[in-house]
Amino acid sequence: MKKGDLLYEGKAKKIYKTDKPAELWIEYKDSATAFNGEKKETLAGKARLNNEITTLIFDYLQKNGVKSHFIKRLSETEQHVKEVEIIPLEVVVRNVVAGSLSKRLGMEEGTQLQTPIVEFYYKDDDLGDPLVTEDHIAILDVATPEDLLVLREKGQEVNKHLITLFDTLNVRLVDFKLEFGRTKEGDILLADEISPDTCRLWDKETNQRFDKDLFRRNIGSLQEGYEEILSRLGGASCTK
Amino acid sequence: MKKGDLLYEGKAKKIYKTDKPAELWIEYKDSATAFNGEKKETLAGKARLNNEITTLIFDYLQKNGVKSHFIKRLSETEQHVKEVEIIPLEVVVRNVVAGSLSKRLGMEEGTQLQTPIVEFYYKDDDLGDPLVTEDHIAILDVATPEDLLVLREKGQEVNKHLITLFDTLNVRLVDFKLEFGRTKEGDILLADEISPDTCRLWDKETNQRFDKDLFRRNIGSLQEGYEEILSRLGGASCTK
Repeated sequence: MKKGDLLYEGKAKKIYKTDKPAELWIEYKDSATAFNGEKKETLAGKARLNNEITTLIFDYLQKNGVKSHFIKRLSETEQHVKEVEIIPLEVVVRNVVAGSLSKRLGMEEGTQLQTPIVEFYYKDDDLGDPLVTEDHIAILDVATPEDLLVLREKGQEVNKHLITLFDTLNVRLVDFKLEFGRTKEGDILLADEISPDTCRLWDKETNQRFDKDLFRRNIGSLQEGYEEILSRLGGASCTK
Repeated sequence: MKKGDLLYEGKAKKIYKTDKPAELWIEYKDSATAFNGEKKETLAGKARLNNEITTLIFDYLQKNGVKSHFIKRLSETEQHVKEVEIIPLEVVVRNVVAGSLSKRLGMEEGTQLQTPIVEFYYKDDDLGDPLVTEDHIAILDVATPEDLLVLREKGQEVNKHLITLFDTLNVRLVDFKLEFGRTKEGDILLADEISPDTCRLWDKETNQRFDKDLFRRNIGSLQEGYEEILSRLGGASCTK
């Protein structure tokens, strides 16, 4: 397979065409951003860490019956995926109160939710990725009510598997963001990445953060946190 | 009936006990506030205008089968109501894109929605009355999913009647906010007020604003706009 033209460059990834139809080449970047791009830094090693972690997690999900756009890891910082048209909704699943939910509801970070919740945010940098209700999504006309049921179900299913996975690693899965895309055949597939950029991951005993809040809040080394997650996921074997 | 002790003073109203159990005395204030109290002014006549307009609208709704806490007008600025425990949710019904919806979705003010939508905001000044989803409301534990169905249905029902009413007055009902309360018997009753403080009302031909946006956006005299609504509602006879 050959790398083709650059299709799209986002904050954390470059996406290239390949010589195969409907298959893409993703290159992770050593770039960290927060607050809708207002805070930005180059952090050596981040591309490798997110690529390796996403690879391990998509592999794990695949083995547990959750399909995604992921085909295979190509190198330390690259992967091969199926082409999908991204649905412009961030599907956020939360097990524990943190971040914007803590601010919105005035509840302390770390409060365990009785049942996991799913939120939708409209992917639009100019609007700051606002929270949207199902009525708003109907107005935006980016997903049908049936699509939203699928997104909720898939979000809950991924949550169930990731809780099991991280539980064995002594990590508390606080919340995470998923993106989904449509294939040419009209199927909805899990896409984008699953990494400490898109999950809140806390040590179960110490509550130490291993995720992008290290960068967002300047509370520690992002690379050390992400490396810890990769190491607990058994990534040593994967990076050989 | 005698006016009793002050129970509560809000931004726009004072609420007193009466000598009757489960009945209250509301006194409207000449005070205009916006942006969660950051902008504040005393505007002579506002108390009378909102009391008269709310009286006419609650009377109209009552005649159309929509029960509310409203019992009767007591004076130019006062009314007699049933006591309810307010559910801390603002129930916002929208027919046309305006205000925060325009900002949230990046859509032009004035865009007609294909179907009316209902939004819930959590009534909490410290949090700035944030938009909440049904999942958030479950976490806050302020209303059950069955309650929310009732609030949605009542919101849509009030909307249907108010569209009919304002249509005859050549006024476009853009959006409005309702509050509901629980009686001691557990019924959910429409409460608070319905006035140009809580509705967006535009002239159908000229798009002239007759609502609190006059004050919020400094685009004209609040009193003149509210007086126009009262006059079109046929308020002259009511204020005698």
